[in-house]
Amino acid sequence: MKTDKDSPLLLYRSLADSLNSLIEKETYRVGERIPSVRQMSKQQGVSISTVLQAYLLLENQGWIESRPQSGYYVRAMVRDHAPEPEISSPTKDPSQVSLHELAMMLMRDSTDPELVQLGAALPNPDYLPTEKINHALTKAARRHAVDGHKYIIPPGLEELRIQIAKRAVLSGSQISPSDVLITSGGLEAIDLCLHAVCHPGDIVAIESPMYFGTLQTLEVHGLRALEIPTHPRNGLNVEALSFAIQHNPVRAVIVISNFNNPLGSQMPDEKKRELVELLARHEIPLIENDVYGELYFGEKRPLVCKSFDKKGLVMLVSAFSKDISPGLRIGWVAAGRYKTELEWLKFTISASPPTLPQYAIADFIESGGYDHHLRRIRREYARNVELMSSAVIRYFPPGVRLTRPSGGFVLWVQLPENVDSLELYKKALASKITLAPGHVFSATNQYANFIRLNAAEFTYTTERSLERLGNIIKDMLGVAGLDAVV
Amino acid sequence: MKTDKDSPLLLYRSLADSLNSLIEKETYRVGERIPSVRQMSKQQGVSISTVLQAYLLLENQGWIESRPQSGYYVRAMVRDHAPEPEISSPTKDPSQVSLHELAMMLMRDSTDPELVQLGAALPNPDYLPTEKINHALTKAARRHAVDGHKYIIPPGLEELRIQIAKRAVLSGSQISPSDVLITSGGLEAIDLCLHAVCHPGDIVAIESPMYFGTLQTLEVHGLRALEIPTHPRNGLNVEALSFAIQHNPVRAVIVISNFNNPLGSQMPDEKKRELVELLARHEIPLIENDVYGELYFGEKRPLVCKSFDKKGLVMLVSAFSKDISPGLRIGWVAAGRYKTELEWLKFTISASPPTLPQYAIADFIESGGYDHHLRRIRREYARNVELMSSAVIRYFPPGVRLTRPSGGFVLWVQLPENVDSLELYKKALASKITLAPGHVFSATNQYANFIRLNAAEFTYTTERSLERLGNIIKDMLGVAGLDAVV
Repeated sequence: MKTDKDSPLLLYRSLADSLNSLIEKETYRVGERIPSVRQMSKQQGVSISTVLQAYLLLENQGWIESRPQSGYYVRAMVRDHAPEPEISSPTKDPSQVSLHELAMMLMRDSTDPELVQLGAALPNPDYLPTEKINHALTKAARRHAVDGHKYIIPPGLEELRIQIAKRAVLSGSQISPSDVLITSGGLEAIDLCLHAVCHPGDIVAIESPMYFGTLQTLEVHGLRALEIPTHPRNGLNVEALSFAIQHNPVRAVIVISNFNNPLGSQMPDEKKRELVELLARHEIPLIENDVYGELYFGEKRPLVCKSFDKKGLVMLVSAFSKDISPGLRIGWVAAGRYKTELEWLKFTISASPPTLPQYAIADFIESGGYDHHLRRIRREYARNVELMSSAVIRYFPPGVRLTRPSGGFVLWVQLPENVDSLELYKKALASKITLAPGHVFSATNQYANFIRLNAAEFTYTTERSLERLGNIIKDMLGVAGLDAVV
Repeated sequence: MKTDKDSPLLLYRSLADSLNSLIEKETYRVGERIPSVRQMSKQQGVSISTVLQAYLLLENQGWIESRPQSGYYVRAMVRDHAPEPEISSPTKDPSQVSLHELAMMLMRDSTDPELVQLGAALPNPDYLPTEKINHALTKAARRHAVDGHKYIIPPGLEELRIQIAKRAVLSGSQISPSDVLITSGGLEAIDLCLHAVCHPGDIVAIESPMYFGTLQTLEVHGLRALEIPTHPRNGLNVEALSFAIQHNPVRAVIVISNFNNPLGSQMPDEKKRELVELLARHEIPLIENDVYGELYFGEKRPLVCKSFDKKGLVMLVSAFSKDISPGLRIGWVAAGRYKTELEWLKFTISASPPTLPQYAIADFIESGGYDHHLRRIRREYARNVELMSSAVIRYFPPGVRLTRPSGGFVLWVQLPENVDSLELYKKALASKITLAPGHVFSATNQYANFIRLNAAEFTYTTERSLERLGNIIKDMLGVAGLDAVV
């Protein structure tokens, strides 16, 4: 493990590396206690101080944690050994969104079968219940031969609304089937919410970084985005929002409280309550996008802000695009006091969502197929996110920070200050890899040295692509062979 | 046929009634020549002058027409014997649309299985190719097991865009597959067009009367509707539009050039050209809704305004909701110079239309199934419209005027001045019949004594409902047994 020739400086590093490797190989498994400082000193024949130094390094890297009166333990997630991105500090002035060109570019990429798709936040096609949902579609077409091709006017198919209302209990919200409006996907639901509560020029507070689709929806509506600092693990900073509300006429707030895209952050329940109460005091509507809510890695379904809503101000939006099928185009919104307005808007703008998919999804949920399917894919996504995190740590240069998502399937990576992610995007494309440059996650270009990686899939090709990406970044830093140096 | 006791005044009436009845029984068929005045005089033993009076009455009622040097012929359509509504003369000021409540009311009706549905302009479910399209859907789900559940980002599935571009040739327009953007139904396409070219407060010129869905879309966008006089058979009055443009900053024009809903009017080709040229001179975009274009009753597919478009100002919108399936939610737009903008808007607002239906419809068109299907339903709709027209004439009081649609499946009926169609709507509801009151076809309540009837279906129940409606109207006029008087 070590030799006498090692200088004291490198001795503790060498020890740390060895332990690191044992953790990676799961000789020491997550949650297990590693040998005490004293034991390790004895076992390895090194000084107490060398072991302490090694343990401190591993702790700083996130591999292990010390528990008072108990010792050192392997941390829950391997990826946790990399530092997380800093909490965001976007500019304080609302600004006009304009991301048109960048978004179109990413759009085009996402259809190119030649590219390794680390860009768009699309679910892994292998984790969609395609066979089962096709079966449900065929069954629906047979059973509802005539009705299956009629419009279903707002609020949408009752059978589906019943299933959605039943499941909502799991996330703490009490909504009835009549509270639910079925939409043509989650994006449309958010569009309708903004239609209902905002006028051009209004200010909408959002998390920063924020999924670029939402930024573009704001652009379409002529709205100004006010970006609120957001913690990479705990989500929206409610105190900062409170401050912002005091200084700006905020007309609405949009939040992905569970597994923000791109952060993967999850607001603690107490913060969700605070947020809802703050907005209730100011009578400001909250658009809560919970499209990733079912893809949690933990023990149980996280609550939604909607569960604390007493005034009907929270519009809870979700969709089946991430876990059943992007192509069926079925989402929904429980819009509280804006329900009637949204039903009318939905009818006016696009009449009704597709009919047969509503029957099929209702059937899939009711039969228990959805729950069974979710249990499986939650594990798969958790695993892929972990594998991709490890690969980023392995192949990207030191100094890189990355998120520790507690759900969903995207990773948010902070690169060294001087790496421009748009330049990286272009270089990666030349290597047949696409990714989402940080530029598109802010209306004020806060994240020029960030990238979002889609971790929905992790294969040999993914790993090789991440290695390639890492090398491109190292080239950009002008430090070839950098990892040999450290 | 007559007796000597008949006074001369009633003699010609009696002769006219007899001839009328022979025409209805098709003893004299559409297009046939009826006996000359001289022959009839001889045959019936009445004076030349009595026959002339009878023929004049029949001509005024629209049953027959005189052709110079040739004689009298049975007119092409039985329904043509009722007078058409007068050309519209809406107020000249743009006005804010607000039809919210009325539209919601009609929405709720349309789902009530207890009601006879003469209200919403829904296609006859029996005239949808449900079995064939379900087969195509199943086939698509099998063939495209993975891709069938992915997003298809704008402009949409290429196979479908190719089929649409090919068919466009029949309506005179030269569009390439890349000009076509697939949308979630026709309504969404119109919404996108308005998004692209208008800002809140702008003035949009529309036909009057106009389908209330469009009026509501204008309301959602905060746009002002400028209603242009429209001829019940020849559609939009281009001269009136030209005048309006000189006096108002018209930002866009919306037209249903083929089979306007509710008029069933068709603009003559020359008028379409004039319209496109007028707007080209003023650089005003035209949103052309051709959703009924395939449902023509004549010999060939009418042209679209788009076929005269040289500047890319015409946005041609259509959908498969009237002839394949309302529930699949597939429409499209060929947006000329606004193409790129619309693709971005579509992606931002609702990502993509449903995927499997795009494959299924492309397959249905390519296989020839669509053409075969259209040939059948055109005949059926023409027949139902004719039957309903006859029934309206039979059961409604005299003084009623109705349109002579050359396509589509709605009838527009002008009732006597003092009949309020909203009151009629309420009374009809009490008799389990729903219809569309004229109020919803204008932003300025021009059509209080009009109703739109959905003629997609004509059954025994339909006929009895029209008889009931006729009686209600007669009651409202306070002229019980009125038809006995005339």
